[in-house]
Amino acid sequence: MHMPLEVFLSLDLIHLEEALDIAEKARSAGFRCFEAGTPLIKSEGMRSVKLLRGRFPEAIIFADTKTMDTGYLEATLAFSSGADIMSVMAVAPDETIREAVRRAREDGKEVIADTLGIRDPETRIGRLIELDVDRICLHKGVDEGIFSEFDILEKIRGHGIKIGIAGGIDATTIRDVAKKVDFVMVGRAVTKASDPRRAAEEILSAIKV
Amino acid sequence: MHMPLEVFLSLDLIHLEEALDIAEKARSAGFRCFEAGTPLIKSEGMRSVKLLRGRFPEAIIFADTKTMDTGYLEATLAFSSGADIMSVMAVAPDETIREAVRRAREDGKEVIADTLGIRDPETRIGRLIELDVDRICLHKGVDEGIFSEFDILEKIRGHGIKIGIAGGIDATTIRDVAKKVDFVMVGRAVTKASDPRRAAEEILSAIKV
Repeated sequence: MHMPLEVFLSLDLIHLEEALDIAEKARSAGFRCFEAGTPLIKSEGMRSVKLLRGRFPEAIIFADTKTMDTGYLEATLAFSSGADIMSVMAVAPDETIREAVRRAREDGKEVIADTLGIRDPETRIGRLIELDVDRICLHKGVDEGIFSEFDILEKIRGHGIKIGIAGGIDATTIRDVAKKVDFVMVGRAVTKASDPRRAAEEILSAIKV
Repeated sequence: MHMPLEVFLSLDLIHLEEALDIAEKARSAGFRCFEAGTPLIKSEGMRSVKLLRGRFPEAIIFADTKTMDTGYLEATLAFSSGADIMSVMAVAPDETIREAVRRAREDGKEVIADTLGIRDPETRIGRLIELDVDRICLHKGVDEGIFSEFDILEKIRGHGIKIGIAGGIDATTIRDVAKKVDFVMVGRAVTKASDPRRAAEEILSAIKV
């Protein structure tokens, strides 16, 4: 049985008040999963995660730390700030991923492996599964364009791992992926919209049966 | 002619006051280059870079953003907070590196490409040189051990790019690399020392002629 799609709002902004304002609008439209984006974390620090946790106690909060080193330390930072999920880069050393997962197991939290920058998707994804990450996010960067290699999805199904997609998802493209993945990250389609609440509603209604 | 070695103190801590205190001690020992470490940036945000800039107006300040995406945005964040240098990951998409370099050229600042996680050093370093990064940091992660592939150094000399090493450098190992590179990052050897000022002095005296 396929679980309901989790739609995360990626708060890829650098000002905390703007991020919280847009998150409130998305919540009123029905969003229940929020991502403290990497630029927001680098700009404002873990304060951003703590404030999201405080403002949305019932939500799933993902700290997109994009960890490349010191896996245990950065996972500790994220989880102790109230995140339910943190991210490691798939291109990070195995040891770093293992250390982040170790911390997640201690805290009953989750680790997303972000595939941005990997050049050998199938081999590396096999290794990520061995390293026991909870989720894999197939990701194209803002500087790169939109994800389109959907054939990889079929190859990594059936490992008990949640699979998601990030990068360029909007009210149109979300339909194409809604039934294929467990979660999606939506960013600019909401955060750059002239009316973020309405944009958030359009995205959620696009995936209603 | 070989320029004097730049020795950066990597403030890989999560508490700002502790980081500033250790930086003050290292400055009194002669350090003139400071790195706002990735965990410090993620914990405290760009406030950490701004405070280092304010406290050490004459120093070289490096914001170790380890950028994987949104290169222009993260370079803007770092430089507008007072950093002289920011970092991109060598494993990041070419577009992200190009965007960070574009911002650095606009501001008269520098970009370090950090090799952590690259699996094809020679090929990728050639590409980094084409992408016009200012510096390359040969880096082993805290979770990985100590850098030892010194043969790569000879192969990337002579491209007008500054080369540095990070990971596991202390008062003993710094002697081995001092004449081979333009800069080194020293972290735990100072930040985890029982007497950081003395540890900082030992490192600087180890490279005196």
